[in-house]
Amino acid sequence: MSTPDDLLALRDSLREFAAARDWRQYHTPKNLAMALIVEAAELVEQFQWATPDESCHLSPEKAAAVEDEVADVLIYLVEIADVLNIDLIEAARAKIAKNAIKHPAKDT
Amino acid sequence: MSTPDDLLALRDSLREFAAARDWRQYHTPKNLAMALIVEAAELVEQFQWATPDESCHLSPEKAAAVEDEVADVLIYLVEIADVLNIDLIEAARAKIAKNAIKHPAKDT
Amino acid sequence: MSTPDDLLALRDSLREFAAARDWRQYHTPKNLAMALIVEAAELVEQFQWATPDESCHLSPEKAAAVEDEVADVLIYLVEIADVLNIDLIEAARAKIAKNAIKHPAKDT
Amino acid sequence: MSTPDDLLALRDSLREFAAARDWRQYHTPKNLAMALIVEAAELVEQFQWATPDESCHLSPEKAAAVEDEVADVLIYLVEIADVLNIDLIEAARAKIAKNAIKHPAKDT
Repeated sequence: MSTPDDLLALRDSLREFAAARDWRQYHTPKNLAMALIVEAAELVEQFQWATPDESCHLSPEKAAAVEDEVADVLIYLVEIADVLNIDLIEAARAKIAKNAIKHPAKDT
Repeated sequence: MSTPDDLLALRDSLREFAAARDWRQYHTPKNLAMALIVEAAELVEQFQWATPDESCHLSPEKAAAVEDEVADVLIYLVEIADVLNIDLIEAARAKIAKNAIKHPAKDT
Repeated sequence: MSTPDDLLALRDSLREFAAARDWRQYHTPKNLAMALIVEAAELVEQFQWATPDESCHLSPEKAAAVEDEVADVLIYLVEIADVLNIDLIEAARAKIAKNAIKHPAKDT
Repeated sequence: MSTPDDLLALRDSLREFAAARDWRQYHTPKNLAMALIVEAAELVEQFQWATPDESCHLSPEKAAAVEDEVADVLIYLVEIADVLNIDLIEAARAKIAKNAIKHPAKDT
């Protein structure tokens, strides 16, 4: 399998991964949104009893677990964007522009 | 504000955005994980009463709403990765390699 | 509509409510689980930027918003229990007994 | 430990359970909302790859797993209602009344 070095390469790896396992049939936006929030919750779980300050200073084991959960969220996000033909970077860029109008900076 | 064309540029835009609003103080991993799952749920909400098939065929209005929610998830994912010094692409690459061992493809 | 004074009465009110709107067709466990997590996220959203201490001392407006979200979670929980024939109190009782074995109290 | 036969008895069992483990210190609304959504996601996970129809017809093993997750959601919901002095049944009753105004039944 190729080594992804950006989002498009990551998308291609994930297409290959799903195709090799005959999983594309399950990858509807509805199902992928469910899978994504399950992974988001596994990330939340890492921090549920921590104070905000403790959440900034993780043990190496905890940091590794968090990194895995962050990765899982990205994986499903890339997959949902793929099936819906969404350009993730462009979508985020457009959303930041909307947010800048909604929440003007103090000194601009 | 610069126009992000990849994840690093997106991270830089988000740093600038948060700094201009004095929001970095709220951006602990605990809080960002909460914000991320709230956005993930807004994505889930778009599909909650749809059949899996309907979720594949969105009206233009629905598709635009979904794109905004996908963007919000990416934004908080980039922010949490930033405060925790996680390389998103590298983390996903490592996770896919783990997943390939956990779920071997049928023909390998 | 009857005024529910316990979980069974609440279930009956919700059955009546859904039937009057022809909504039962959407109330599969899959869809209801999605609706439930969307409401859970609206509860999380109330606390996402608050410190743990601030989350204990809510303004009257915030407290009212939180109460509405807590109610929405209970509503979908009762509905999912209804379609799956789960006795909520009995299920919780059994789970607490399991948890007591998994996490023994210090002085027992 | 007493056997809860309604929500108040359940609340009392959970108070006793938390006190015996010195866990009340962690039970801020912020933390409990996080714990609740983590359990809601474990419920979602049970249905993520199922069709809506499959989610209505669970194997005994799956039904037992779902019942455990439903119970966990109720447990944290009762705990968050307890720390915030929310009467769950009353809150749900008030919310159903609001919903009836927002979504009028067809024949009323």
